[in-house]
Amino acid sequence: MSVLSEFQLIERYFRRRSRKPGTPFALNSDDDCALIAHAPGRQLAISTDMLIEGRHFFADVDPRALGHKALAVNLSDLAAMGAKPLAFMLALALPDVCERWLSSFSEGLFALADQYHCELIGGDTTVGPRTLCITIVGDIECGQSLTRNTAHIGDDIWVSGTLGDARFALGILRHEWSATTDELSATRHALEWPQPRIALGCALAGVARAAIDLSDGLAGDLAHLVTHSNLAAVINVDTLPRSAVLARQPAAVQQLCTAAGGDDYELCFTARSDTDTRTKITALGEQLGLRMTRIGQMIDFRATDARIIWRNATDTRLPLSLHGYDPFRADQ
Amino acid sequence: MSVLSEFQLIERYFRRRSRKPGTPFALNSDDDCALIAHAPGRQLAISTDMLIEGRHFFADVDPRALGHKALAVNLSDLAAMGAKPLAFMLALALPDVCERWLSSFSEGLFALADQYHCELIGGDTTVGPRTLCITIVGDIECGQSLTRNTAHIGDDIWVSGTLGDARFALGILRHEWSATTDELSATRHALEWPQPRIALGCALAGVARAAIDLSDGLAGDLAHLVTHSNLAAVINVDTLPRSAVLARQPAAVQQLCTAAGGDDYELCFTARSDTDTRTKITALGEQLGLRMTRIGQMIDFRATDARIIWRNATDTRLPLSLHGYDPFRADQ
Repeated sequence: MSVLSEFQLIERYFRRRSRKPGTPFALNSDDDCALIAHAPGRQLAISTDMLIEGRHFFADVDPRALGHKALAVNLSDLAAMGAKPLAFMLALALPDVCERWLSSFSEGLFALADQYHCELIGGDTTVGPRTLCITIVGDIECGQSLTRNTAHIGDDIWVSGTLGDARFALGILRHEWSATTDELSATRHALEWPQPRIALGCALAGVARAAIDLSDGLAGDLAHLVTHSNLAAVINVDTLPRSAVLARQPAAVQQLCTAAGGDDYELCFTARSDTDTRTKITALGEQLGLRMTRIGQMIDFRATDARIIWRNATDTRLPLSLHGYDPFRADQ
Repeated sequence: MSVLSEFQLIERYFRRRSRKPGTPFALNSDDDCALIAHAPGRQLAISTDMLIEGRHFFADVDPRALGHKALAVNLSDLAAMGAKPLAFMLALALPDVCERWLSSFSEGLFALADQYHCELIGGDTTVGPRTLCITIVGDIECGQSLTRNTAHIGDDIWVSGTLGDARFALGILRHEWSATTDELSATRHALEWPQPRIALGCALAGVARAAIDLSDGLAGDLAHLVTHSNLAAVINVDTLPRSAVLARQPAAVQQLCTAAGGDDYELCFTARSDTDTRTKITALGEQLGLRMTRIGQMIDFRATDARIIWRNATDTRLPLSLHGYDPFRADQ
């Protein structure tokens, strides 16, 4: 506990020393608003996410990891649109002023911010149940953004990285299933230190036709993409990319974690199914050191009875009723 | 209580039917980010505020008033910079889905948003202690923003409207002092339905030299302006504008409410002290139907021993130790 005032707290933990030259920010954050001057022909992409203790993170989470994750989930929204990070605002409620906590939290936050040259330009701090609300601003060329409603019939559906490790680790911590200490430590990183796919998102402009980031689980997020594109999707659950640790778990756990897990922060996108496009995407993955996996295809919604058809490797339809994370569902 | 999903909730209460033509928003908020295309030579002003139940509002507050106030406090930040409202993001945590509450809340929110043609372009909803975080975006011509650090020695200090009614009503509700039912109903409106001074802020470009909005009380907010301008201020507490109801209260209550009250959302600004400028500001007040009061002057900090010198009408210095609202102070 400490007796820092609000402004001392900001000064000590959230004021940055140096600013990179040539930023579009006209002022520092001492005024009532931050100012952004923007170039002609470009758009700003804006997104906001709120994380609450006990719901989105455990009370005893490493504050450095929390600082990282709070920004990472917002960066992931920019990645899904193909936008380049510019700046963010942080609203922070804390039950008390613990300087050790603040020091670690801001360390994790700024390490990731620096990695993407994303500047903290303003915010709000107050007392209350521990809550983080970040609003992020990205830059994108007019007409180049990736969107959800632009998938075509016949498009391949791709995901980056592997799915399900975050949900598997969460299940261990929640005692939904048991695992070895090694299995927890191998998967916990995915839960606490998600890596936003900014480079991939920016590189997908002109390659992908529609995209979304996987924050609430493939079943839920893909459903948004499919619905907004007014199409349906066929997914082969056996192709969903997973880590070696997850691949050793019972089939039902694997399926739940990969198809309806949440907290993956990988990109799911559609693209033309021709050889050229497939080669380009595979090459892009190699260049970024990121696994790229084709998991299914977009189909005509009128030809089917569901938005997502789940199949397995032997092409048998699976009677799965999977859904994404919804904070207002009592069973989550 | 209700069984709405997150997306049903958004669809029912926060999706607007019509969009005004010619907005700079390229997309609706179905994607991961909202997009803003901005004109050359203009800047975006961005601000964020978080309101928490039990700290910033009572649990039983009229949700329509809360919807209004959540947006009003953000609009007030734009007013302080002289920015015109464009759009906002809403992050909302709710302990449960009460449709009556949501309906009233969104009614109050959108009534004010419509008044200023300020569009809801995105956000986040989740379950948690009732918390509102709005990030607002305004538009301003490059180089025309009002700032805190640009006051000059000899500038007049002005405030709009009257001060202290919100704090007086809060004190009644908190049983800090007693008052008649009429006195409460006359002042409660200031607490629950603050009016952001957007028109004034926009009109002050080129007239005011420095400005800030009064959210945490004159003593605290003026201290920011004075410190950032590296000057000091002399304030005549007897000139602080107050309502007839507040003017009937004990002197100590009047002083606390007007000089260190908080929640006023009036503008405090400095301007040249010549007759032309004074006439212009008085005329502007008449045009806007808004009282404009000169409350003091900016002075050289080196000529004094405090950032703010409080005096009374007989020019006697008052030994006041007033400070603005600070959420991390135990005594507030």
